[in-house]
Amino acid sequence: MSILIDDIGLLVTNDPERGPLTAERRDAAVIVDDGVIAWVGDRVDAPAADERIDAGGRCVIPGFVDSHSHLVFAGDRSEEFAARMSGHPYTAGGIRRTVALTREATDAELAANTARLVAEMRAQGTTTVEIKGGYGLTVDDEARSLMVAGSFTAETTYLGAHVVPPEFAGDPAGYVELVTGAMLDACAPHARWVDAFCDDGAFDVDQARSILTAGQARGLGARLHAGQLGESGGVRLAVELGAASVDHCTFLNEADVDALAAGSTVATLLPGVEFSTRQPYPDARRLLDAGVTVAIATDCNPGSSFTSSMPFCVALAVREMGMTPAEALWAATAGGAQALWRHDVGRVAVGARADFVVLDAPSYVHLAYRPGVPLVARVI
Amino acid sequence: MSILIDDIGLLVTNDPERGPLTAERRDAAVIVDDGVIAWVGDRVDAPAADERIDAGGRCVIPGFVDSHSHLVFAGDRSEEFAARMSGHPYTAGGIRRTVALTREATDAELAANTARLVAEMRAQGTTTVEIKGGYGLTVDDEARSLMVAGSFTAETTYLGAHVVPPEFAGDPAGYVELVTGAMLDACAPHARWVDAFCDDGAFDVDQARSILTAGQARGLGARLHAGQLGESGGVRLAVELGAASVDHCTFLNEADVDALAAGSTVATLLPGVEFSTRQPYPDARRLLDAGVTVAIATDCNPGSSFTSSMPFCVALAVREMGMTPAEALWAATAGGAQALWRHDVGRVAVGARADFVVLDAPSYVHLAYRPGVPLVARVI
Ligand SMILES: [Zn+2]
Ligand SMILES: [Zn+2]
Repeated sequence: MSILIDDIGLLVTNDPERGPLTAERRDAAVIVDDGVIAWVGDRVDAPAADERIDAGGRCVIPGFVDSHSHLVFAGDRSEEFAARMSGHPYTAGGIRRTVALTREATDAELAANTARLVAEMRAQGTTTVEIKGGYGLTVDDEARSLMVAGSFTAETTYLGAHVVPPEFAGDPAGYVELVTGAMLDACAPHARWVDAFCDDGAFDVDQARSILTAGQARGLGARLHAGQLGESGGVRLAVELGAASVDHCTFLNEADVDALAAGSTVATLLPGVEFSTRQPYPDARRLLDAGVTVAIATDCNPGSSFTSSMPFCVALAVREMGMTPAEALWAATAGGAQALWRHDVGRVAVGARADFVVLDAPSYVHLAYRPGVPLVARVI
Repeated sequence: MSILIDDIGLLVTNDPERGPLTAERRDAAVIVDDGVIAWVGDRVDAPAADERIDAGGRCVIPGFVDSHSHLVFAGDRSEEFAARMSGHPYTAGGIRRTVALTREATDAELAANTARLVAEMRAQGTTTVEIKGGYGLTVDDEARSLMVAGSFTAETTYLGAHVVPPEFAGDPAGYVELVTGAMLDACAPHARWVDAFCDDGAFDVDQARSILTAGQARGLGARLHAGQLGESGGVRLAVELGAASVDHCTFLNEADVDALAAGSTVATLLPGVEFSTRQPYPDARRLLDAGVTVAIATDCNPGSSFTSSMPFCVALAVREMGMTPAEALWAATAGGAQALWRHDVGRVAVGARADFVVLDAPSYVHLAYRPGVPLVARVI
């Protein structure tokens, strides 16, 4: 069945064949056939279709691609947040609290919590989401976390190397052996990606290298958490291993920026983290000016960033990271798609998936101009 | 007809008779009779009622009181916003653009735009809103702006002294004469408050004094914009004149803080402005520690702060202004009520208006912990 999406006042296509960045069209229309975009053009030229959706002259953008989230967990950490807002610094330690609660939870409880957050994201315009494990940290708990994630998305990420669990506190090397051995065996069939948290107080570069290469040897694509808490070699490691994305990139040295500019790895920035931990924001302007491809994601998780809102992250990127509204929107859609090696989402072009957001606004600039206001009128 | 609001996991009462600040109750219930709160207590003790609303163990707070907004206008200024995000500074000059569009608009267009924004606010939990004029700047346009505002709220504010309009560019004294003369005559019957913009590039202290005292002589309560763009004597003027509130308070000297602490004027902070103009945030901590009463409002307007979201302002207050979640919530409810000399809103106590927000969260901490996420489940 074909659908005509008509009277689009401003259409963001992100189509690289139509010009730079957002490649906008005015007074446009789109034809969708069986969930795939079949035609894009001026509304006066639109062919007939079985059904018609009227965008009412408003702005239509590709659905957001949130390429970094941790939705499979139990409990919340609002007390830790409140303490942090009274001056306590953020460390990776709080993750262990969520690990304990996640292990205790039933499969049904984990699935229900994940479903709630996925629905919340969708209501805010996110149509593609990556979901990581990482709060189980046993063979069984990581495998079941990925199975839960897999019931909501194809973009599932094995993150056994989130933190060293308490039972391996004296033996991090032993835990890395588990992560690259039996846990990988159990998880690889349920994951598309392998990830690790390579930072101060988390896994070091050598450990991260062995974890990512073990995953790659099993056919998983690599991605990495690095540069959240301090400079490390993690950013360069990600580029060296051909990772799809290196995420956080708050602390970068010149060599990191040069490596990102020369390589194909996307720098995914997560401004919700800096908002919720009172850290300085990553410098997107520096990365963009150096020619690095930048994505924006929520990092939705109960510790360092419990927002599920891509519009909020776009507004922060403009206010705090030196991005223009067009750069931020591109990063939250096409950038996220590139960070997941996806060509079928994050753009409006013939052959792409028909994921659209109708904004209750004449322009996507309003995502930054009207911060905090729910502007998602409809998700298609 | 009586309604029982039952199974409230956490109830914020802001009842000064029950202790400091938010005066929270666990496992509470409320009885509402004809729109007024008739009983507040433990749910096990709740009397019978004609109808029952189940809060499902969630957090219930008083409806937000947004004590500062400019909703009667036409057009938007997203291009100015985008230019500002590329480095152009904010000045009061852009207001003139909105003035030109507002004068051209029909009454029906102004009412429709205001209605849309009031509805947007309500969906985000705002149950009391103050609305200013100030984009007409002629006798007729200010009077009709207040009539539009008055169809949505009792808290209408005469702000003829927003900026000097172009036709008085060479004669600001002549404009002040109009504002305190014929324009006041036409507007006073439709306003509860008189306000002026006392700042660098706007009206000076002497002008503001003559405008506020003229309004007070006609029975209007006084409020003032001061300290947004620089230090001025405006803050002390507001306290001296017994104004209900002085709004912005971004730039304050010691004498300003001392005057606020000694007087009865509320300091209303508008963090959406600093977010959208990339200015430094006001220091709420300094004011609270000095004993000043602080409110938070959106300042919703098309130039310096086009957010209508009180939850967003609460999150900013916690992240950027040194407030705890409890202080920020109080400021956005009871603080706003005090800034409007209202005792019947902003709290949950017998005799108060039955304005509630059911949050999709176990605690109001989530307003800051989950920034950008629409957490308002239901507005009563
Ligand atoms: Zn993460
Ligand atoms: Zn204002």
